[in-house]
Amino acid sequence: MEYPSRVLSRAVEQISTLPGIGQKTALRMALHLLRRDSQDILSLASAIESLAREIHYCPTCHNICDEGECDICADKNRDSSTICVVEDIRDVIAIEQTGLYRGVYHVLGGKISPMEGIGPADIEIESLTRRIAENTINEIIFALSSTIEGDTTAYYIYRTLPKSIDIKVTSIARGVSIGEEIQYADQMTLARSIRNRIPYENTL
Amino acid sequence: MEYPSRVLSRAVEQISTLPGIGQKTALRMALHLLRRDSQDILSLASAIESLAREIHYCPTCHNICDEGECDICADKNRDSSTICVVEDIRDVIAIEQTGLYRGVYHVLGGKISPMEGIGPADIEIESLTRRIAENTINEIIFALSSTIEGDTTAYYIYRTLPKSIDIKVTSIARGVSIGEEIQYADQMTLARSIRNRIPYENTL
Repeated sequence: MEYPSRVLSRAVEQISTLPGIGQKTALRMALHLLRRDSQDILSLASAIESLAREIHYCPTCHNICDEGECDICADKNRDSSTICVVEDIRDVIAIEQTGLYRGVYHVLGGKISPMEGIGPADIEIESLTRRIAENTINEIIFALSSTIEGDTTAYYIYRTLPKSIDIKVTSIARGVSIGEEIQYADQMTLARSIRNRIPYENTL
Repeated sequence: MEYPSRVLSRAVEQISTLPGIGQKTALRMALHLLRRDSQDILSLASAIESLAREIHYCPTCHNICDEGECDICADKNRDSSTICVVEDIRDVIAIEQTGLYRGVYHVLGGKISPMEGIGPADIEIESLTRRIAENTINEIIFALSSTIEGDTTAYYIYRTLPKSIDIKVTSIARGVSIGEEIQYADQMTLARSIRNRIPYENTL
């Protein structure tokens, strides 16, 4: 598409590289920005620039942070012997929002996917193995997506765990969502819900 | 929502000020950016920054441009005696894409809307009047939206045109879209299509 200004063209082209944003939406956003104060536009630009310049990754769990260790790893009140293994930073955010988990995390940054050419070496598995070897870890919780890739990743990690160390390995529970009607649950989920049923007293 | 990094929080907050972007989408975009090369992130940031620093408006027609007059006003091959009055830069882009119009434009930057507190002085009407008074203008084409606000704006401009000058004033044709089925056209549009019917030979 031709735009009346080179600067606008470049902005539209750049904004449309964002996921889910086409040319028309990008143009709408660019023109929306033009109607704002230039100070507002600069704030957005600088916030995005900071993503490139100021974001760090926690050397322990690979969660993002501003400097040094992430807040979760640095928090002395958290149980560093329990590691929840997740694919993505968004999973950390989601689990943190429950306010229920007091252990620490390990962000893999993806999952093993031969179809996409992602092997064990492409995600943070080695650093997890090292972390387990060098620290006292009591439990590993898998909170990976229940897809072939997620299952493969969990199984791969499970197999690489040293036999010599006594670690409890768990996976988050799968089942019919709270609020979901039984009749509308998919078969796989419902089957898993029945197979992994728990004592009724535990739900009280 | 709490994010593991101050920098990420700020990026999410800023991105979510874009139209149609909520917190979740903004987070997805920010994390998507983090997976890219930092050079890519900086390109986006700088393209947005340019919107604040490098965009100019054409002093004649108020279309955006990079410097001086816009390409359309500067183009000696265009008929500067025909002015198409539009609300928005997007309208200019849309009309230019037809490749059919050889006149020039006047971008009002909005329409008169008492409900939103936008009066004639808030949009580029005075500069249009001045442009008409100071140049030889043969035709004014209204290409405004067919809403109460669009109609009001057209009528207001029509009334301010100097009676002493002989200017043809036209409005773009409204009617059933090409490809649209007659039975699904809305009543108002269909009525307008019938009232403003044209000789069949003109469509050949």
